[in-house]
Amino acid sequence: MYKILDCTLRDGGYYNGWDFDDKLVETYLKAMEALPVSYIEVGYRNNGRYGYEGKYFYCPKFILEKIRSLVPSKKIAVMFNEKDVKPEEVARLLEPCKGLVDIVRMAVAPTRIPNAIELSKAIKAEGFEAAVNMMYMSSLLDDKADAIFEQLPAMEGIVDYFSLVDSYGGVYPADVSRLVKKCKALLSMPIGFHGHNNIELVFANSLAAIEAGCDMVDATVTGMGRGAGNLKTELILTHQATKDKVDVDFNSLANVVTDFEELQAQYGWGTNLPYMVSGANSLPQKDVMDWVSKRSYSINSIIRGLSNQSKGQKDN
Amino acid sequence: MYKILDCTLRDGGYYNGWDFDDKLVETYLKAMEALPVSYIEVGYRNNGRYGYEGKYFYCPKFILEKIRSLVPSKKIAVMFNEKDVKPEEVARLLEPCKGLVDIVRMAVAPTRIPNAIELSKAIKAEGFEAAVNMMYMSSLLDDKADAIFEQLPAMEGIVDYFSLVDSYGGVYPADVSRLVKKCKALLSMPIGFHGHNNIELVFANSLAAIEAGCDMVDATVTGMGRGAGNLKTELILTHQATKDKVDVDFNSLANVVTDFEELQAQYGWGTNLPYMVSGANSLPQKDVMDWVSKRSYSINSIIRGLSNQSKGQKDN
Repeated sequence: MYKILDCTLRDGGYYNGWDFDDKLVETYLKAMEALPVSYIEVGYRNNGRYGYEGKYFYCPKFILEKIRSLVPSKKIAVMFNEKDVKPEEVARLLEPCKGLVDIVRMAVAPTRIPNAIELSKAIKAEGFEAAVNMMYMSSLLDDKADAIFEQLPAMEGIVDYFSLVDSYGGVYPADVSRLVKKCKALLSMPIGFHGHNNIELVFANSLAAIEAGCDMVDATVTGMGRGAGNLKTELILTHQATKDKVDVDFNSLANVVTDFEELQAQYGWGTNLPYMVSGANSLPQKDVMDWVSKRSYSINSIIRGLSNQSKGQKDN
Repeated sequence: MYKILDCTLRDGGYYNGWDFDDKLVETYLKAMEALPVSYIEVGYRNNGRYGYEGKYFYCPKFILEKIRSLVPSKKIAVMFNEKDVKPEEVARLLEPCKGLVDIVRMAVAPTRIPNAIELSKAIKAEGFEAAVNMMYMSSLLDDKADAIFEQLPAMEGIVDYFSLVDSYGGVYPADVSRLVKKCKALLSMPIGFHGHNNIELVFANSLAAIEAGCDMVDATVTGMGRGAGNLKTELILTHQATKDKVDVDFNSLANVVTDFEELQAQYGWGTNLPYMVSGANSLPQKDVMDWVSKRSYSINSIIRGLSNQSKGQKDN
């Protein structure tokens, strides 16, 4: 049976600058402890080169202690942006996490697998499990991606988990199935899938990944996550309760969903026409997220901008 | 290439009592005329046994004339609830539709195929095409449904279109594929699929239907439709533009989407935890729609009610 990783605080933080209310986080963590979720990714660890962001962008020790006390039975993960962390910085960054965090995941571009392996060595030297989240999986559908796949086996014995990330939210179930099978054939560690919902295929893609042998799927409460958002934790749990007769505490689930629906009314994640167009054309949703959330552009002008991007022209 | 039927006014009307603003309908119809949509279902025809509902629940002649003038190049459909219309009432009900409407679709329960055939004969005698929308397709997944499938060939030469309807929004792509193939093997008329998005599979299910040979899919602008809503017209069109290089006028599309997003902010269609639970358990979404839209029940009490229904207990 595949496992669920909930990354609401980490991926959802793109909407509220990782500035979650303490009471909300407490409700969230108590629900996670009660639900059949195996891993909880609670935020980023960063080396302070950035400006002001909320607590879950930095995950200081007092936050991790609080989290650990509320989810004693779960594995806790934090994330690095691989390109922003040097191996020699790892010991200092992870020192406050010892005994509190189990897994350090890295967001890694397909071109930077050797860097990710070096970073993994440093992470494991500090006593943590290391996980690679490989971004931009739509770029791996091409035959030209063979060179990337040839590099994957070098992760064996160093990287503990490997996940494919549909960064643009535009892949289709058959694509996911093919890539998961390819990774399963090359690697012995657990394989995961992290989807985005631009073209409303995140659940179908997650099911395709699971059917292809994927060992874990990422989800967030109400789908709170960058751009069009993620697989909804409440959806995959409802599916498990119905299809796999997994025992799900719907009272805890409903409580946390209600709280996040209030946040959603404020920030408005979920897909819409601009996100559909960016997903279908494998365009970064970062720009769309800025345009949509500022509400200062009409859909028409956003679509025009995206259409120009997909033709390789600059916005005017 | 499969065709698109847009039924925004008909299925969306469950949210606003079929009381659409004239200006919105004009924007909508102009967009439909400009877009690669083949059929437009504009509402119900009813024999007046109901109480007050908006114009598109009755579709009087002046409304149909306005619609016909704005979408001269499209096929126009209206819907009957089969169980509410007797064959002897058809001539009177369809007289005002002559020269304005092309197709009369019937919402039909699987147990009432013989009735639908009699109604189809009356519809065709008035010079219209007749279409059967067979509801509750989740009930056809059972082996006991063989008796239903045996009745389908009797529709040959009488019924012009046959669509499978996922009334509860809970079927999976493999189910859709199997049932569409079964219908294609039994019937020579075009086969359609009408989905609902309770477990966020409506697009994946529509793609599975298309891959299985389905000839038409139903969609609504922003997914406006009963309960958790339908396949989004803007999503299937974005898909066609990207994957099939179909020419889509994104300006017209963005205009109509913007207008319906305003309605959505008011009525709030789309899925949520109660709809997921009702879909996953094949429970009617009519009750959930009442509970959710009245906002007088907590998610917890709705889930408890649904959980009791799925166990065959009465709500308390």
